[in-house]
Amino acid sequence: MDVQRITVLGAGSWGTAFAKVLADAGRDVTVWARRAEVAGEIRDGHGNGSYLPGVRLPDNLTATADPTQALVGADAVVLAVPSQSLRANLTGWRGLLPSDAILVSLAKGVELGTLKRMSQVIAEISGAPEDEIVVVSGPNLAREIAQEQPAAAVLACTDHERAVAIQRATSNAYFRPYTNTDVIGCELGGACKNVIALSCGMAAGMGYGANTTATLITRGLAEMVRLGTKLGADPLTFAGLAGVGDLVATCSSPLSRNRTFGERLGHGETVEQAQNAAGGQVAEGVMSCSSIRALAQTNGVDMPLTDAMHRVCHEGLDPRRAGAELLGRQNKHEWS
Amino acid sequence: MDVQRITVLGAGSWGTAFAKVLADAGRDVTVWARRAEVAGEIRDGHGNGSYLPGVRLPDNLTATADPTQALVGADAVVLAVPSQSLRANLTGWRGLLPSDAILVSLAKGVELGTLKRMSQVIAEISGAPEDEIVVVSGPNLAREIAQEQPAAAVLACTDHERAVAIQRATSNAYFRPYTNTDVIGCELGGACKNVIALSCGMAAGMGYGANTTATLITRGLAEMVRLGTKLGADPLTFAGLAGVGDLVATCSSPLSRNRTFGERLGHGETVEQAQNAAGGQVAEGVMSCSSIRALAQTNGVDMPLTDAMHRVCHEGLDPRRAGAELLGRQNKHEWS
Repeated sequence: MDVQRITVLGAGSWGTAFAKVLADAGRDVTVWARRAEVAGEIRDGHGNGSYLPGVRLPDNLTATADPTQALVGADAVVLAVPSQSLRANLTGWRGLLPSDAILVSLAKGVELGTLKRMSQVIAEISGAPEDEIVVVSGPNLAREIAQEQPAAAVLACTDHERAVAIQRATSNAYFRPYTNTDVIGCELGGACKNVIALSCGMAAGMGYGANTTATLITRGLAEMVRLGTKLGADPLTFAGLAGVGDLVATCSSPLSRNRTFGERLGHGETVEQAQNAAGGQVAEGVMSCSSIRALAQTNGVDMPLTDAMHRVCHEGLDPRRAGAELLGRQNKHEWS
Repeated sequence: MDVQRITVLGAGSWGTAFAKVLADAGRDVTVWARRAEVAGEIRDGHGNGSYLPGVRLPDNLTATADPTQALVGADAVVLAVPSQSLRANLTGWRGLLPSDAILVSLAKGVELGTLKRMSQVIAEISGAPEDEIVVVSGPNLAREIAQEQPAAAVLACTDHERAVAIQRATSNAYFRPYTNTDVIGCELGGACKNVIALSCGMAAGMGYGANTTATLITRGLAEMVRLGTKLGADPLTFAGLAGVGDLVATCSSPLSRNRTFGERLGHGETVEQAQNAAGGQVAEGVMSCSSIRALAQTNGVDMPLTDAMHRVCHEGLDPRRAGAELLGRQNKHEWS
């Protein structure tokens, strides 16, 4: 499978950084940006100042605001839009996707309402078999990758050959992708970690240090594993780059939007105030905590941390009260 | 089993903070300090300015520099000395240990030469059965616990009743201990994490960000699991507080001595220079990387990160070269 011409749909920070990874691996890359001025800046100015200030994009990377033009002749199409708008966006692009292009998902979340993972949404809308969609995950803060700091990633696909094709198309001097066949685990890890990062930010905003953050990460990982194994994921995935790796990077970096959003909530801001401060965007975790909670309830899985985050974000629970509740449970054995 | 009178042998930061935890759980605590002036400061000034500046110690906590006086009538004895000096210290105290006291280990390391875990060293010297020794682990940065920030910990002992006795003696408003019967896993997690923290510090010192740290943590965890399962630990332990939890806290906090030591190496200092800057002390990980590497070799386990740290610390390998070697391996499947 030869993947030379690649289209990235979405010009946010991760979409743009991933486009740079592909271009630096020698591929011909076209980015689609919703706004013409962003497309123009990428195409003519080799930069994306709104999302990756100070980063120079390579010459074999161009951009357009016209999806038809972006998608023509693509060997692979990378979906880099927020999880809750993926369905609407993809519905608009459906007729434009080259029929044999490999579809690659950068979106991390569980869809509200349908409770579907992103690859399931992509399969449903595009008509492509679920087995053939490649999911990207791992400890990949966009800004650091755009700075060419060494990073490892996971490319998950049931069809190993497609994962290998994307592995070849992304391997470069600073980006080291591993293949994996556990799509469910990789996607759930990516979705759950945003909720846990929100809680870590909240704890930091309340003045707590590394012990508390590490405890939230550990207990969050435990509930991620419970949900994942119940839904058919391989528990080993959560010990790897798409589980612990992605979780730790997102929870510990000040560059993480979810962590930053949580910090504002920990300072006492409302979701609306935090949203305004973030330029009108809510963090992925604010939506995902509700859909993951619903998925857990449907499957009879206990996720106290996710539940607490849902109640803080959507039912007005005070973050301090949530913390006290999570800590106030009975003395017991670690795994009971 | 009633544990009311407890002796803590060692007045470093973790020994002192753990003594405070016990006192705040209503126990009568005596700390033994090597230096008479430190004992005097704890006893009369309710503080330990060298190790926990600004922390007020409770009134039911006293101290002495006389081990005989410290140990008389103790229901439990907490060993809080560095791992490589535990054998020599304990040999001196052997005749003074009350015969029915529960022995509790705070030391994290693998002994150079013998390659024994700390509970094995304690059993060998004290004559107590290995099954009865309680090991403390988890995300427990001493400074934060002394500030009464909420923290969770693991108390591991094959004899569940003894773990529960120490659980009762340590549970208080900010310290939440869980019991666990996997002593091997908890001790190996505690030892290995210091080596990984050293590597994370080194990466930070070289200017790398959260993606690299998260990748080192993930790959370090994988080799910790490989060694642990080979030696009979429960893999689940490494997903918990004594594995991921302790690892993440130590690797991400600027309060961690191992991380700070590694940062100096990453800046280009030699081990000797870093040691001088740390007041003459080397970090636990500097010794543990050699003993864990030897333990891994003896058992045929591949631990590339630990091996690299040994070569940086003891064979003059350049940290940048070590990083390039770790990243430069072939494209492959995540778990192959």
